[in-house]
Amino acid sequence: MPLLESRPELELVVWPEDRACDRSWLLENIPGATGVIVMLTDKVNPELLDKAGPSLRVVSTMSVGYEHVDLAAAAQRGLKVGYTPDVLTDAVADLSVMLALMAGRNGGIGVSLVQNGEWPNFSWAPFGFCGPQLSTTAASPTRKIGFLGFGRIAQATLARLVPFGITHCLYSSNPSSPPNHQRDTDLAKKYNLKAVSKVNVDELARESDVLFVLAPGGQGTYHVINEGLLRKMKKTSILVNASRGTLVDSDALAKALKEGWIWGAGLDVVEGEPNVTIDHPLVKEPRCVIVPHIASATLETRRDMATRAAQNLVAAILGGDMPAQVDLSA
Amino acid sequence: MPLLESRPELELVVWPEDRACDRSWLLENIPGATGVIVMLTDKVNPELLDKAGPSLRVVSTMSVGYEHVDLAAAAQRGLKVGYTPDVLTDAVADLSVMLALMAGRNGGIGVSLVQNGEWPNFSWAPFGFCGPQLSTTAASPTRKIGFLGFGRIAQATLARLVPFGITHCLYSSNPSSPPNHQRDTDLAKKYNLKAVSKVNVDELARESDVLFVLAPGGQGTYHVINEGLLRKMKKTSILVNASRGTLVDSDALAKALKEGWIWGAGLDVVEGEPNVTIDHPLVKEPRCVIVPHIASATLETRRDMATRAAQNLVAAILGGDMPAQVDLSA
Repeated sequence: MPLLESRPELELVVWPEDRACDRSWLLENIPGATGVIVMLTDKVNPELLDKAGPSLRVVSTMSVGYEHVDLAAAAQRGLKVGYTPDVLTDAVADLSVMLALMAGRNGGIGVSLVQNGEWPNFSWAPFGFCGPQLSTTAASPTRKIGFLGFGRIAQATLARLVPFGITHCLYSSNPSSPPNHQRDTDLAKKYNLKAVSKVNVDELARESDVLFVLAPGGQGTYHVINEGLLRKMKKTSILVNASRGTLVDSDALAKALKEGWIWGAGLDVVEGEPNVTIDHPLVKEPRCVIVPHIASATLETRRDMATRAAQNLVAAILGGDMPAQVDLSA
Repeated sequence: MPLLESRPELELVVWPEDRACDRSWLLENIPGATGVIVMLTDKVNPELLDKAGPSLRVVSTMSVGYEHVDLAAAAQRGLKVGYTPDVLTDAVADLSVMLALMAGRNGGIGVSLVQNGEWPNFSWAPFGFCGPQLSTTAASPTRKIGFLGFGRIAQATLARLVPFGITHCLYSSNPSSPPNHQRDTDLAKKYNLKAVSKVNVDELARESDVLFVLAPGGQGTYHVINEGLLRKMKKTSILVNASRGTLVDSDALAKALKEGWIWGAGLDVVEGEPNVTIDHPLVKEPRCVIVPHIASATLETRRDMATRAAQNLVAAILGGDMPAQVDLSA
């Protein structure tokens, strides 16, 4: 806000509440706007853009994802679209590590049990509350970490896992993006791993001890984690999704957990969120740890994201390079 | 068990349930025993040792801590005492990192909210569910990590935090143990930290962004984390205890959380556990994440601990070096 308020050329119209903007308020206030800052809860579609009218020059989203923005419609209207990559990489990587640990180590079950006053009923037992260990041990010296999507966040997550003794990194990424053998060799050397390898999703499912889903949302990745893939995973494996709920078929994952195809799951996102109630099949699974889409929720990162969104807007309207602009040329 | 069963010289008497042994059963079955394997829930005091009688030669505990064993009484009777250090270092370090992340990132609150079906009531908000970020950022480039106790587990935890961008490591340890400047310099160089410094507990409290309590239990460390120390900590700081509940004054910590002296806490242990009910002052604090003493609870580590406890027992009775023997010479 100070950054925007410091530009007297801008007339600001601000949604006054600390929650997602009401659609009706947005539609009512956007006509004649030169630019708009939105969040991933605001659908930027032809309806909204038409309401704004020909004055609109920029849509700046305070998010790294932009599947809520109709890029074709924006391009047709000659708009610029800004987003906030990079600044949330570390916050999301931190949370991905947290979810991997919680899903393997009974993080959700343990917290609930103490919260519900059930600890006195549980005596310490030699194999009580045991789950698979993220770190390697002398008797269990191999850990293969898989990434579906191998961009900035995945690589930042990989870096955090190195001191846990992981030995192999596998990843699958956009089939149209060419392999990058040199980068992979460099990463393996830097982190002293036995291998960093691009594999197909079947091998990724079969081999990963922990599988992180860190790819963009949208139609191209819809339900890429489905029943067929989950059935190929190890019984002791962990699935983490800190990208978008649409990548994972919730019913298939609930079945996988109930029937023990995999050990546990840690989810920051669920398809259809926030409409996830106690009747949701994943909420009913004790080995499914779910947090309410907080991967970028740190004081430091949200401030950086807000700053970046404001900078994108100001640059697009008043001139200068936008710090992060979505390429609409395709 | 296979390791013990493979020695026909040993007659085994085994508590048949997968929970802590009933005291009465133990007292009834120990007379005439040559050795006993115990857990930290079994108090090894003169009562038990006298019941065993002069045949007893070894007490082998399946734990890294041995504050439940009366060492003076064991020494008087000429017993050997075995324990299981090292093999649980990595599991406890993993959990310490998990608790630090959960306490900072609303891990407990987030899980409970989704479990209770409240997610639909929470719209995404720019600063919703935000907490302090463990990783450094460009705008927040310093992270000081403190350790009360700087043994194997603390150092393994430190190693795991390096890729999060931490910059300083502070520690306090047994005042009678001499400073180890060379080790500290080597660690700082190895991990590219600005400093690894031994400090007094007041400075530790004042400077740490995350303070890990990883020191032994017993009288020497009783309530070392008390109101005076908690008042010195930063408002954005996190306290993690994965050692013994007795090191932390629960009432003082509850007050610190309620009044915002610190940001949050992650506890694997609570004084008086497992008698920790919904009326416990720490259970009532939303920013206090508690798991039920599961720091070593992984399949890999508990198997290793059991193996080590059996090896200690066998060596003490049948000859050979005990892999890990408590020094009773003091």
